Amino acid sequence: MTKKLILDLDTGIDDSLAIAYALGSPEVELIGITGTYGNVTVDLGVRNSLAVTELLGHPEVPVYPGLSHPTTRDGFAVSDSTARIHGYNGIGEVEIPDASRALQSESAVDFIIDAANTYGDDLIYVPTGALTNIAAVLARDPQAVKRIGDITIMGGALTVPGNVNAWTEANISQDPEAADALFRSGAQVTMIGLDVTLQTLLTKRETAKWRALDTSAGRFLADMTDYYIGAYGRIAPHLGGCGLHDPLAVAAAIDPSLATTLPINMMVDLEGPTRGRTIGDNTRLNDPVKTARVAVGVDVPRFLDEFMRRITALAAGTALVAGTSLSAGTAQSAASATAEAHPAPKAV
Amino acid sequence: MTKKLILDLDTGIDDSLAIAYALGSPEVELIGITGTYGNVTVDLGVRNSLAVTELLGHPEVPVYPGLSHPTTRDGFAVSDSTARIHGYNGIGEVEIPDASRALQSESAVDFIIDAANTYGDDLIYVPTGALTNIAAVLARDPQAVKRIGDITIMGGALTVPGNVNAWTEANISQDPEAADALFRSGAQVTMIGLDVTLQTLLTKRETAKWRALDTSAGRFLADMTDYYIGAYGRIAPHLGGCGLHDPLAVAAAIDPSLATTLPINMMVDLEGPTRGRTIGDNTRLNDPVKTARVAVGVDVPRFLDEFMRRITALAAGTALVAGTSLSAGTAQSAASATAEAHPAPKAV
Repeated sequence: MTKKLILDLDTGIDDSLAIAYALGSPEVELIGITGTYGNVTVDLGVRNSLAVTELLGHPEVPVYPGLSHPTTRDGFAVSDSTARIHGYNGIGEVEIPDASRALQSESAVDFIIDAANTYGDDLIYVPTGALTNIAAVLARDPQAVKRIGDITIMGGALTVPGNVNAWTEANISQDPEAADALFRSGAQVTMIGLDVTLQTLLTKRETAKWRALDTSAGRFLADMTDYYIGAYGRIAPHLGGCGLHDPLAVAAAIDPSLATTLPINMMVDLEGPTRGRTIGDNTRLNDPVKTARVAVGVDVPRFLDEFMRRITALAAGTALVAGTSLSAGTAQSAASATAEAHPAPKAV
Repeated sequence: MTKKLILDLDTGIDDSLAIAYALGSPEVELIGITGTYGNVTVDLGVRNSLAVTELLGHPEVPVYPGLSHPTTRDGFAVSDSTARIHGYNGIGEVEIPDASRALQSESAVDFIIDAANTYGDDLIYVPTGALTNIAAVLARDPQAVKRIGDITIMGGALTVPGNVNAWTEANISQDPEAADALFRSGAQVTMIGLDVTLQTLLTKRETAKWRALDTSAGRFLADMTDYYIGAYGRIAPHLGGCGLHDPLAVAAAIDPSLATTLPINMMVDLEGPTRGRTIGDNTRLNDPVKTARVAVGVDVPRFLDEFMRRITALAAGTALVAGTSLSAGTAQSAASATAEAHPAPKAV
């Protein structure tokens, strides 16, 4: 049976690439995208999720509004440094049309609980932004979280420094309490952190292949990702490319053999100078049950090969199905067409 | 060929257990102990190294004076919290006679360089305190360090919090610059940190077996270690025993299969709030050559079995050879006797 996938995104450039990876993966059906904040506000994130799925030829994917800020704060604003990495519109200042369809009325938290109860072991949940939604699910219905077959987060840094400061990774920094609650909940969590995502790098050599497809999807993916590669060239020139954070989490959730993981009980520092650091929990060091698996190694060539194969085929395929989807009317037609097929047709 | 072993110790309770483990291991010849500081001053440490080796029936082991403080400071003093863990005399307030023999006149740094040039691949170097001596070797003769067959340090914490504060382990905290220099030197280093040493715990159930031997070595080891177990009961009661830090480093150097290690390029934070933290070096994250192997797993039952088997046999055996070594004259006789045998007789 095809696994059901929920992406919980602050969409974002690499979030958009995660959407493309998921839509290009025949092993999973993307049953919904829930909105969170971080790279962008939750409002801009769900706008982008709706628009990107439609541009990629998959207007059948429902998008759910999530929580807009951590419970420990009154609001959330995107930092200037973040806006310079993802663009002020979140997708590298590339203009794409608003989606023709609307946001779901059901909340992200309700949708996740419903999906956990409906699909259980067959559900994969991949959050790649602040973990506020899943923490709210935990607070409301802890058993629902344990029913989810696989939780793979993009976030944290165990064996390498953070990217907000020397000890904190951006997604965890948005809501350290939420991440700590998830790590201590007893639910099994796979952590795809900077330890591995900064090993999987994309360059303009690869994005040129998308542009050469001469499809609206290919041009969008190439232009948006080039913006991200440019930002990495300024903030981390030693890497020689942009980190494929969110798509690596999706890839590892679909095929765990891509990552080497360390079984460990994790926590997040909530007090003191290292607030926001993801680290092993010494009080559970010798507990034989380990609730986290932290990726400490990744098969870089195989991931990059899967990444390019799946996304390039998707972006090429949309030339046929949704190449003219820049007009809302055509996109709606595509929605009707793909909605009849179940699961949605995948390009690989 | 029997490997040659140098221990670089701030002797200390678990350093004394490391000496016992080494002397109980037929795979290695302990060719010298170099003195460093941390648990105690370098002066008290070398006093203890001389006395402990003699009490354990091995007065043939030469002890070399090392550097007394980091180059970044003018001196070193033992903290009260450290003294309450190891005792103000470093060996749990247990009184043992001063050794009959004297410290070597050659410096620790000269001895390490000589041994590296003489034994090369057959030399194992295990520092379990401040890394000031090996940093001085690096500054004087970087090639000598690379000639050492195996460098296995006890120090640092990669996947768990520190024990000085939330991010710094005690040995690294004494001289962060020295540790950073070693990690960045290009020399291969195995790091046995709190990640694994807090998994290998000893209780009074085991020390009772040493006391029951009714030998001076057995009584000393039991009384000294019980002091350490008592300190752990106060500072880390969740562990249920004392961490076998330094002996685990010796054991893993002798038999690397005891530990699961992560290949990674390491550094030490020298600036900012997390000064003293051991962490992966992002600027070398994607360098295919990894100069450190950080232990992230340990075969606890097998190590504890080797630990008890080797040290108990040594403590039992000294009843025959050096059971009366509490008199300096007898110890000298033992020294003459064992000096004729080469390598020194081992109890296992």
